[in-house]
Amino acid sequence: VQLPTKATHRQTREHNTRLVLRTLSEAGRVSRADIARRTRLTRTTVSDVVAGLMDVGLVEEVGRGPSSGGKAPILLRIPPDARHVIGLDLGEGAFAGALVDLRGDVRREIRVPLEGRDGEEALTVVHDLVAKLMRTATSPLLGIGVGTPGIVDTRSGTIRWAVNLDWQDLPLARLLTERHGLPAVVANDSRAAALAAYTFAPGSRGRDLVAIKVGRGVGAGIVLRGELLLGDGSSAGEIGHVRVVEDGRRCRCGNVGCLETIASAAGIVAVAGQLAARTPGCTLARAADAGTLDLDQVRAAWAADDPAATTAVLEAGRALGRVIAGLEGVLDIHRIVLHGSVTAFGARWLEAVRAEAHGHTLPTRGNGVEISLVDLDADLVLLGASAMLMTSQLGMGLAR
Amino acid sequence: VQLPTKATHRQTREHNTRLVLRTLSEAGRVSRADIARRTRLTRTTVSDVVAGLMDVGLVEEVGRGPSSGGKAPILLRIPPDARHVIGLDLGEGAFAGALVDLRGDVRREIRVPLEGRDGEEALTVVHDLVAKLMRTATSPLLGIGVGTPGIVDTRSGTIRWAVNLDWQDLPLARLLTERHGLPAVVANDSRAAALAAYTFAPGSRGRDLVAIKVGRGVGAGIVLRGELLLGDGSSAGEIGHVRVVEDGRRCRCGNVGCLETIASAAGIVAVAGQLAARTPGCTLARAADAGTLDLDQVRAAWAADDPAATTAVLEAGRALGRVIAGLEGVLDIHRIVLHGSVTAFGARWLEAVRAEAHGHTLPTRGNGVEISLVDLDADLVLLGASAMLMTSQLGMGLAR
Repeated sequence: VQLPTKATHRQTREHNTRLVLRTLSEAGRVSRADIARRTRLTRTTVSDVVAGLMDVGLVEEVGRGPSSGGKAPILLRIPPDARHVIGLDLGEGAFAGALVDLRGDVRREIRVPLEGRDGEEALTVVHDLVAKLMRTATSPLLGIGVGTPGIVDTRSGTIRWAVNLDWQDLPLARLLTERHGLPAVVANDSRAAALAAYTFAPGSRGRDLVAIKVGRGVGAGIVLRGELLLGDGSSAGEIGHVRVVEDGRRCRCGNVGCLETIASAAGIVAVAGQLAARTPGCTLARAADAGTLDLDQVRAAWAADDPAATTAVLEAGRALGRVIAGLEGVLDIHRIVLHGSVTAFGARWLEAVRAEAHGHTLPTRGNGVEISLVDLDADLVLLGASAMLMTSQLGMGLAR
Repeated sequence: VQLPTKATHRQTREHNTRLVLRTLSEAGRVSRADIARRTRLTRTTVSDVVAGLMDVGLVEEVGRGPSSGGKAPILLRIPPDARHVIGLDLGEGAFAGALVDLRGDVRREIRVPLEGRDGEEALTVVHDLVAKLMRTATSPLLGIGVGTPGIVDTRSGTIRWAVNLDWQDLPLARLLTERHGLPAVVANDSRAAALAAYTFAPGSRGRDLVAIKVGRGVGAGIVLRGELLLGDGSSAGEIGHVRVVEDGRRCRCGNVGCLETIASAAGIVAVAGQLAARTPGCTLARAADAGTLDLDQVRAAWAADDPAATTAVLEAGRALGRVIAGLEGVLDIHRIVLHGSVTAFGARWLEAVRAEAHGHTLPTRGNGVEISLVDLDADLVLLGASAMLMTSQLGMGLAR
């Protein structure tokens, strides 16, 4: 199809601008000539695009680089505060929001406990959080990036189904844009976190990875060739609902025996409670009976070598390990990182995951797979969601 | 890093040539101006590259297209016989080789029964097959594309491990190039077939797919964003070794209970034989006892509603379905196609696969997944391997 000449020119211009920004965000400080080499654009085109970006403050000159014979070239960079992004993590029990700069540094963060609110009330919390952050912004805002549990159609910004928040077919991106006048991107939390782990976890940049969130739910984000895998139905990485027990307990999804019924925080609490009930009088049994058993109590019991807690946690690790083996059989990605509240069970739980994953993998490659905890003191969901917004608006990842 | 100017120019030239060829192979007949628009290269560059390609016979002019006002543009295409490729399928029981044109049409095919040969002897069969095809070639040969069972490091062209052929760390690509003076590409058969299914299966072009070969072994090829997923350890898609039975039979890989022990041709034969042994005297039991039971006999028994064959085949289908559900949980690719000798069990087997896959998938998306047999009377492995060779040499897929 032949496009009208004008549209073609505008599209080419936008394409080139995004290409230049991506190159700058990946390379840090580079000269115009370097950008031309990396992008295969002509020097004239690069100078043109750079001039446009300098006009809007997205590029600045920062001195001269080493000379390769002739005159030392002027270096360019993206000023981190040229724009800020509002990042949201609609997490377990609390929503977090932050102003994030173009380098991925959190400049201000707010947490609001949910206290059981869901549906419309939870949506109000989101709007209030955004409004509060907008009032304190010190740089022009690029938009809103949201990470949320549930099945999310990222292409349309719609939350198909987030069972804990009682949201169904909620067009959150559109609602945020209408209310606050900013572009918005909405992604599943596990996926957003995977993107952040890819960018920030030491030694991982440029290597494909699977980041698995093991918390209230269990979900994976898969980064292949530097890009998030979305899936035809927007649910790639939904490993929490792979069946691991043929006659297992009913899952909130409607099926039985899903990985989440055993390996998630709620699954561990339920299994530990059931097991403890066989030895009435023990602390866990009493709490389970009263319906107050929670993950912290199971963690305390686990630390004290309580048998019910030990069995529940190790079986949780093994079930996760088996599903990781299946995932490895499909993807053959050697870097798997785990995060989320369940990872607090630490080394013994991790060993159970690893042993089972390796034992169920082709002997010729089991050893190549590296399963580790994310060693980062940062809100991966919030950072990943911010990065997705930057990519959608500027065509670039975080400018590290 | 600043490359020497000359190398940069040569690389740019090669990059542009591949870009133009890819555009031509995807678009069929196009004008120079169209190529410029699609590739974002300047018209001068395109004319330059096209002139070079016409010199070596890879592009020809084929009349004029519709005018959009001015002079009707000259259309270009890749002549299908400009080059031929030798494609090999080192299949089960027989090796097949063919001369394939640039459109993917098989121009001449030879099949050589293996008759139990493996190791060095099987390698000799490969060399003889190539030599015979080279003698009958009527177009310049571009190279050799090989699809083989086993774990293959496609980047280096080495077969890491092909148990039935008794090949281990065999640098087949290098050996073929040394002997025959042609570039060679070696890929796992399931993957090569997936690429061919992506190109040839009706309605699938441009849609991600998983193609699962269910024959002597069970393996998947995954096409994501138009590209084969290879995996960090070159074994993406090796789903045959996902454990499906905790205390199952020993697999040839060394583990126990792998999908292959139940769902492959050999697995079905073994399970049917075991079950039949419980009713001594029946045909299957006698054949199993004599060690002569094969897939054809099980197929005949299945057609006659023999209980042992029925149970073995349906359980094979269900086990495959469960692994497909796990794969869906990870990839969320909605198009799954099955091929290989086991698919001959037909509709009832396929129904068992589908029912189990859907029953183990998130209720919200089970229905979106389409599992079907490849409806093509072609050697997918051979065609896919040829396509990979074309991509490596010319940067283009098959010119459909």
